[in-house]
Amino acid sequence: MLLDSLINQAARKDDNMVAVAAADTADVIEAVIDALNRNLAEFILYGDEEKIISQIKLQKQELLNNDKLNIVHTDSVVNAAESAVQAVSNQQANVLMKGNLPSNILLKAVLNKEYGLRTGNVLSHTAFFEIPGFKQLIIITDAAMNIAPTLGQKVQIVKNAVSLARSVGINMPKVAAIAAVEAVNPDMQATLDAAALTMMNKRGQIPGCIIDGPLGLDNAISELAAEHKGIVSDVAGKADILLVPDIEAGNVLYKSLIYFAKAKVGAVLAGASSPIVLTSRADSAESKLYSLALALCSVKR
Amino acid sequence: MLLDSLINQAARKDDNMVAVAAADTADVIEAVIDALNRNLAEFILYGDEEKIISQIKLQKQELLNNDKLNIVHTDSVVNAAESAVQAVSNQQANVLMKGNLPSNILLKAVLNKEYGLRTGNVLSHTAFFEIPGFKQLIIITDAAMNIAPTLGQKVQIVKNAVSLARSVGINMPKVAAIAAVEAVNPDMQATLDAAALTMMNKRGQIPGCIIDGPLGLDNAISELAAEHKGIVSDVAGKADILLVPDIEAGNVLYKSLIYFAKAKVGAVLAGASSPIVLTSRADSAESKLYSLALALCSVKR
Repeated sequence: MLLDSLINQAARKDDNMVAVAAADTADVIEAVIDALNRNLAEFILYGDEEKIISQIKLQKQELLNNDKLNIVHTDSVVNAAESAVQAVSNQQANVLMKGNLPSNILLKAVLNKEYGLRTGNVLSHTAFFEIPGFKQLIIITDAAMNIAPTLGQKVQIVKNAVSLARSVGINMPKVAAIAAVEAVNPDMQATLDAAALTMMNKRGQIPGCIIDGPLGLDNAISELAAEHKGIVSDVAGKADILLVPDIEAGNVLYKSLIYFAKAKVGAVLAGASSPIVLTSRADSAESKLYSLALALCSVKR
Repeated sequence: MLLDSLINQAARKDDNMVAVAAADTADVIEAVIDALNRNLAEFILYGDEEKIISQIKLQKQELLNNDKLNIVHTDSVVNAAESAVQAVSNQQANVLMKGNLPSNILLKAVLNKEYGLRTGNVLSHTAFFEIPGFKQLIIITDAAMNIAPTLGQKVQIVKNAVSLARSVGINMPKVAAIAAVEAVNPDMQATLDAAALTMMNKRGQIPGCIIDGPLGLDNAISELAAEHKGIVSDVAGKADILLVPDIEAGNVLYKSLIYFAKAKVGAVLAGASSPIVLTSRADSAESKLYSLALALCSVKR
């Protein structure tokens, strides 16, 4: 399965409504128009009404009369964030999408105790990569949200990723808990956490997936490399999900895939009551669309 | 400059003698023959004499009478490691190369207080990558040796990499201290160390290079990404050396480049009195040759 199939899956689901916080820049409107063209969802755009309308006029004027596009004026980005989050918690919308505002402003609204989207779970960044030469999507978590997750947080990060994988049809995802080495080393916390996660999976504490670790990245994704090291495992060489030990490893891997390996990506923030699309201006239009499609696929219905 | 130019540079240097510890497997002999064919160095091969000779016979029989190839029988890998290290400390050889033995056995001999190759400096792994689409080598350190270096150790790791870069003609290397974000964040040690290294460089404490950090990997190697973030820097977008925060980030980046980006690599262990080639069986013959060439270029003469 590759990223385009996420778009096809998303298009087959009905009643999708996306609340966009601060939708007033060209790149956000472009992503919205792209999704409308493919009939993925309806939208409520929160932000400066005048700017939103002038952007739509510039890009595709006839959409101003499209009943799948609703505009709600807000007078600040904080207000846009709060209104978009409330639309999701009120079930007017089932996906939240970040527009032109800092992530921390949106997250503050998401974490609001009254109207936010908390579930008690850890929020985690989960990215689906299509990598040249690889036939399957490779899911990487957490490259952007949790700085140095504890073992307990890693359990939730894995559960979030497994739930996302299952929502797009990867029913028993193989999870590699990545470290720099394959041996358990008392001086390397990543290897201890990986060993613990593997055993928690074996004891039924993390169901719905097969976990193995510690594994080096090479052994996780190359059967030949795993064979070289004599590693016998249901996960090695064919991992669907790579759990990285911390944000530094994840971030470097994420950016290496984009800038060095020319991979494509779609990513969401998982663990809230609804999926959250956290694209940034630097993301390509294609990547924004993949992220939105992934979010739409993972809505709990 | 790309990796082939390291081979050309190495071939122009005279009086190179490489001591190989445990040279008794096909892949090691293959690397040695490859280097002899290109006239890069002479060799002393330590290990099981019978096995070494039978491997040479299998691959290129006429080399048995080549006076650039010396074989010294040892009766164990520990003995092979000790003898090869002693050959370097006695100045019979100027490069140490790992053959078919565990790294820790070789390193134990390297660190021996009587006859080892200690200088008081941190030993660090330094890898030169040729990445498709990039015109310059990108140097990554430390992906394999130091688990969680302190700031003091990072200073030495940078100095080792700068010294290597200069030995191959990169005279004022640009060093990016990599973190997950570009902002200094009190909760992220990698960003604090990066900021400190940058200022140490400005104060003349780490000479011979230009350091900037914290930088995300994207901003370090893509001018467009740096521009997107409004980063003004002599290093951003054109870094020669990427200092990674720890072994997990480095290892994942290293393996991502090999397995996802199809990059080529040559690497040495720097910081000892002579360069050390630590190839493993899984390395390609090409990669072993690049590593040896890099080591030969960096010999202090």
